[in-house]
Amino acid sequence: MRRKEFEVENREEIEAFLREKHDGVLTFRGSDGWPKAVPLNFVYHADAIYFHGSKAGEKMRGLADDPRAEFVVYEAHAFIPSYFSDPVRACPATVFFRSVRIRGTVSQVEDLQEKAGALGALMAAMQPEGGHAPIDAADPRYVPELKGVGVLRLDSESVSGKFKFGQNMSGKKREGVLAGLENRNWPGDPETMAWIRAKAPHDSAGR
Amino acid sequence: MRRKEFEVENREEIEAFLREKHDGVLTFRGSDGWPKAVPLNFVYHADAIYFHGSKAGEKMRGLADDPRAEFVVYEAHAFIPSYFSDPVRACPATVFFRSVRIRGTVSQVEDLQEKAGALGALMAAMQPEGGHAPIDAADPRYVPELKGVGVLRLDSESVSGKFKFGQNMSGKKREGVLAGLENRNWPGDPETMAWIRAKAPHDSAGR
Repeated sequence: MRRKEFEVENREEIEAFLREKHDGVLTFRGSDGWPKAVPLNFVYHADAIYFHGSKAGEKMRGLADDPRAEFVVYEAHAFIPSYFSDPVRACPATVFFRSVRIRGTVSQVEDLQEKAGALGALMAAMQPEGGHAPIDAADPRYVPELKGVGVLRLDSESVSGKFKFGQNMSGKKREGVLAGLENRNWPGDPETMAWIRAKAPHDSAGR
Repeated sequence: MRRKEFEVENREEIEAFLREKHDGVLTFRGSDGWPKAVPLNFVYHADAIYFHGSKAGEKMRGLADDPRAEFVVYEAHAFIPSYFSDPVRACPATVFFRSVRIRGTVSQVEDLQEKAGALGALMAAMQPEGGHAPIDAADPRYVPELKGVGVLRLDSESVSGKFKFGQNMSGKKREGVLAGLENRNWPGDPETMAWIRAKAPHDSAGR
């Protein structure tokens, strides 16, 4: 994806997130005119986002009428309770997260080699240990399924990332949250603490 | 929510899922005409879905123009590798999941008591241990924030749930998946095995 497309976070962080995650929500206008939200597995491959599914579903119908779509990938890293930074009011309670939104148009992939490449990349991402014959458009064990499966490609027009880890907190509040996470020590908390420190403004110690 | 609204799973299972989860993706038509996908925390409260956020964002603008929306809540329970049921082909690889989609219209909540009730329910869901003063529309410590925060209510028109745990597998494939999960034993796998058994057709042993 082209650098100019990235609005908030940098290209490397957004691409790493898209490689790490395997599901998101695809949004489009349904053929009944209502907005639709469909959770899907995906793979970021060859500069695009690929999905697969039935050729005869609401996605195919809606996107054939209007190919404009947005796909969002989200990970909640840590709930931050209010009392980490405020002994009285509930207001500071929040969630630290990463999200990426990709706006673009969706096409149905017809070429069997492109289908095989996308599905092979999806398998490599989700089942990296292997344990299956390579997906090959020339392999008769795969040809009927490759012809039958619907594969969609989202070509991005714009990509924006939002990684929220307390960047706008005062240094004092940040220290309170870091101390609270260290004390709580839930499974994801050490990683969240690393993100908070990585995203803190360089002058935060003095604020 | 009314019983007739539930299409796939039963009311109790869908409501339990909505109480258990705290985030999802809200989909609507943006004021630029493009579909939008926004990850949000939510609470299922008083027969509706409530969100909060800035009063001046894209959500408020888009939903003021067209209040139709869909909200989806999703949980991926287990990746099922192809080799659990097929030694050669990649095709059976899948993910077992729960998802609920809620279609309806979104209104901005202006009443401070309704706002306080929704935000209090959100805190009770996400911070059940307490540790803050109760959110009360008559408490001067909360009034300015209650006036300033945007609160949205999604009133459902239809709700559908999809809980995928191999219901359509043959008995033999189901046994292969159960054996594979038992052997793999990742943190969520025992729960997934319980879902598979709970959702298996009653006659599956003979298939």
